[in-house]
Amino acid sequence: MQNGLKFVAAATALFGLSGPAIAETPNRAQLAAAVKAEHAANVKRLKDWIAYPTIAAEKVNVDKGADYMRQLLLDAGFQQAKIIPTSGVPGVFATLDSGAPTTLGIYFMYDVKQFDPKEWSSPPLEGRIVDRPEGRAMMGRGAVNQKGPEMAFLAAVRAFKQTGRKLPVNIVLVAEGEEEIASPNFHEVTANPEVLAAMRKAVGVFIPMAGQESNGASSIDLGAKGAIELQLISSGENWGRGPAKDVHSSLMAVVDSPAWRLVKALDTLVADDGFTPAIDGWFENVAPLTARQKELIAEGVGKSNEAEIKQQLGVKQWIRNEDFLTSAYRLAQQPTVNIQGLVSGYTGPGGKTVLPGRAEAKIDLRLVPNMTKDEAVSKLKAHLAKRGFGDIVVNVSGGYGPTETDENSLLVQSQIATLKQAGVTYTLSPRLAGSWPGVLFTGPPLKLPAVGFGLGTGGAAHAPNEWYLIDSTNPKVAGFDEAAMFYVDYFYDLAVMPRAR
Amino acid sequence: MQNGLKFVAAATALFGLSGPAIAETPNRAQLAAAVKAEHAANVKRLKDWIAYPTIAAEKVNVDKGADYMRQLLLDAGFQQAKIIPTSGVPGVFATLDSGAPTTLGIYFMYDVKQFDPKEWSSPPLEGRIVDRPEGRAMMGRGAVNQKGPEMAFLAAVRAFKQTGRKLPVNIVLVAEGEEEIASPNFHEVTANPEVLAAMRKAVGVFIPMAGQESNGASSIDLGAKGAIELQLISSGENWGRGPAKDVHSSLMAVVDSPAWRLVKALDTLVADDGFTPAIDGWFENVAPLTARQKELIAEGVGKSNEAEIKQQLGVKQWIRNEDFLTSAYRLAQQPTVNIQGLVSGYTGPGGKTVLPGRAEAKIDLRLVPNMTKDEAVSKLKAHLAKRGFGDIVVNVSGGYGPTETDENSLLVQSQIATLKQAGVTYTLSPRLAGSWPGVLFTGPPLKLPAVGFGLGTGGAAHAPNEWYLIDSTNPKVAGFDEAAMFYVDYFYDLAVMPRAR
Repeated sequence: MQNGLKFVAAATALFGLSGPAIAETPNRAQLAAAVKAEHAANVKRLKDWIAYPTIAAEKVNVDKGADYMRQLLLDAGFQQAKIIPTSGVPGVFATLDSGAPTTLGIYFMYDVKQFDPKEWSSPPLEGRIVDRPEGRAMMGRGAVNQKGPEMAFLAAVRAFKQTGRKLPVNIVLVAEGEEEIASPNFHEVTANPEVLAAMRKAVGVFIPMAGQESNGASSIDLGAKGAIELQLISSGENWGRGPAKDVHSSLMAVVDSPAWRLVKALDTLVADDGFTPAIDGWFENVAPLTARQKELIAEGVGKSNEAEIKQQLGVKQWIRNEDFLTSAYRLAQQPTVNIQGLVSGYTGPGGKTVLPGRAEAKIDLRLVPNMTKDEAVSKLKAHLAKRGFGDIVVNVSGGYGPTETDENSLLVQSQIATLKQAGVTYTLSPRLAGSWPGVLFTGPPLKLPAVGFGLGTGGAAHAPNEWYLIDSTNPKVAGFDEAAMFYVDYFYDLAVMPRAR
Repeated sequence: MQNGLKFVAAATALFGLSGPAIAETPNRAQLAAAVKAEHAANVKRLKDWIAYPTIAAEKVNVDKGADYMRQLLLDAGFQQAKIIPTSGVPGVFATLDSGAPTTLGIYFMYDVKQFDPKEWSSPPLEGRIVDRPEGRAMMGRGAVNQKGPEMAFLAAVRAFKQTGRKLPVNIVLVAEGEEEIASPNFHEVTANPEVLAAMRKAVGVFIPMAGQESNGASSIDLGAKGAIELQLISSGENWGRGPAKDVHSSLMAVVDSPAWRLVKALDTLVADDGFTPAIDGWFENVAPLTARQKELIAEGVGKSNEAEIKQQLGVKQWIRNEDFLTSAYRLAQQPTVNIQGLVSGYTGPGGKTVLPGRAEAKIDLRLVPNMTKDEAVSKLKAHLAKRGFGDIVVNVSGGYGPTETDENSLLVQSQIATLKQAGVTYTLSPRLAGSWPGVLFTGPPLKLPAVGFGLGTGGAAHAPNEWYLIDSTNPKVAGFDEAAMFYVDYFYDLAVMPRAR
């Protein structure tokens, strides 16, 4: 899951990890004992999974990660799990039919972000247990994003298998292996007729998450911006001008420069403030924040520490020196054109006298409702073509539109119920500035509620020394077993919710 | 020496390697026999030197290369050679006083360009002998740029030591170890009082070169553009806005982007054609080509094969689709602002969701008379500051102004005499588009003629598989021994020239 940035930190928590949930989970003690009994084995499963990373950007284990995922699901108690081929890395589809009237949809990602072992204090694939202020944590790539929370969910499912009990809900699960490259082919998984038919039965979909703050506060993210990742590539080869490869830099006097061409094209994409998107028609379908969304954002801001957030980010002021609330609105509402990276010619120390034959800008576009991926890509291409930059390759490597879920949906209301019963302070976040492919569920044809949900904590997603809390020393924050039991409780809460559909 | 690009290829050659020169070199047979007798040892010396690269950009052997150079000079017959410390890599100063009325200045570079062994078919530091269409050649970093030609020059000097003869001219030699990073400290060598006093006695200065074409044609390069290498660095740290390090790309909604800032700043440096420098006042001191310079360029163009050059460069057309002659004028006359490289944020395959805290453009500026290095750097900084980009760091890593030498100078006329006597077709090139620090000699206070000069050939300077011809199979092109003997002949020709000063 891409970092779900928002300016929210709830202030209080009354979280009791052993407290019963709304539906008074039957045989809770037995299920909790089962989770506890399996603790070491579950931790070992997580460690083993971390040792086997699927990294789509680097084509690491892209042919085998799906089968690993499939086996984990079958092992946890899913009755069937199958690999769904796509044009890229395959997805996985699994079902657990307990004959219940209610069906819950679950979204997993089994891929992880790239990493550089040199930047880690502990080997990123070893999943070592480290001591942290929060307790004993597992450190490794994918620990919190997203294998740890997903393994906690599987531990909940497994507890029913261990105790020979039926889940109170049915589960349909889809997993993908390309989340970290912005899900370029996940629509092929959700459009698979068998998957689609099964998902239609779900009351909604969530991805297991572990985002508790140190005070125990959790959140339900009702929406997220869409994201498109693309590379703009200017090359002599494609342009038909300039050099086909790097040549001596003195030739700049008579040979066109693909690098300067890229700079000139980039320059047209944002206004002179270096910030506001300037792509033709970019704001045409941008809907304003609703009053309720602004209210929720303001609530979140009221609970957040601006100075602390700025310090963490290494940022002295927000764009245009705006205040915290304005910036929080903007974080949710601003569509962005970001440069992730620039690479051309010589990139080592000092200089080297070359005129590069190729220049590339790595870009991400963040979209807000009601922008769509197709709209954004077409507008970008038309914008470039209109200005004579039609030769610049727009290589869309992944992406999807924004997602929104109604807080009054059965899914969210059932989650709120479980959070309340557990005494967990929560916030509703109307829109993450980061992105996840929820639109594949919230958009047509499924139009299901879809959010991130869970207890527990971790950090450094996408960064070195990523970690996920296993054994919590903080009574307000869930460790692995408590996170699993929270899902157990939720299954029962969802099962007894009045049917809204 | 930076590649001296020009559109010149002489059409015919009457070069006889064994022919006597203007001054009828006394004891030529004996000197030639000495060169021949030392052939294997000289080739071994070149091989050993290649095995010991000084690479200023990478700080390789920067503390020891000068002493190696010094020993080579003393061993060849220089009476004294000393290391001249600078703020960077040290220079070397050597003299050979034979009590002659005429003193010749020589410029050596002892450093070489960076290399990547993976790109080479033969290990770049082994100096292996390879068979080429031209004959047996040594392949290695620095082979032609500039150790091979310099070793041929030393072989000529050594021949006098071997035969116990006095050179007909005195030699003062300065060597530097930072040519490949645009000579940031070489002015400290030439400004050294002892060096300066010695150099003032010289009639001119040349750097040994090996640029014969397959038809034997050679050239004397009367001038070269100046070159400044610099890096433009935009960073949150220096700007006081944006992130101090890479942060999640969703923050583009509220955090300023150093990468966009760099793009906006770069955009102002060249016109919308992606080519014409747009730095304030850039053309203020640009002098037009003289009629004679245009004449020389046109002569060169008449002897060149445009299609072949385009094919070699991988270029389909010149800037603005100009014809070959116009492009040749422009190659000599156009001051340039080139992007050597761009580097920011994520530079691996695909994308990564970061907002980079830093962005760097590697730039070289090529200057024509009468622009100067100081003028160019100040104008660039003023230009950026005026547009509010004063926080962007302008890191000048090296550079010098343009150089020009009068074709009627004693130095050039003596060289022409030797070329003619040897029957070598030659061209006079008024200005290389590439650069070398000749201005340290042609500029104040020395104001000496300074050119590149020599026979022999090689290729792939700055590129993989750099080579230098040792044993030529082409009677029109000099191998190592013939290149050495050409310098022997030249010493005598220079000694008998009528004194112009």
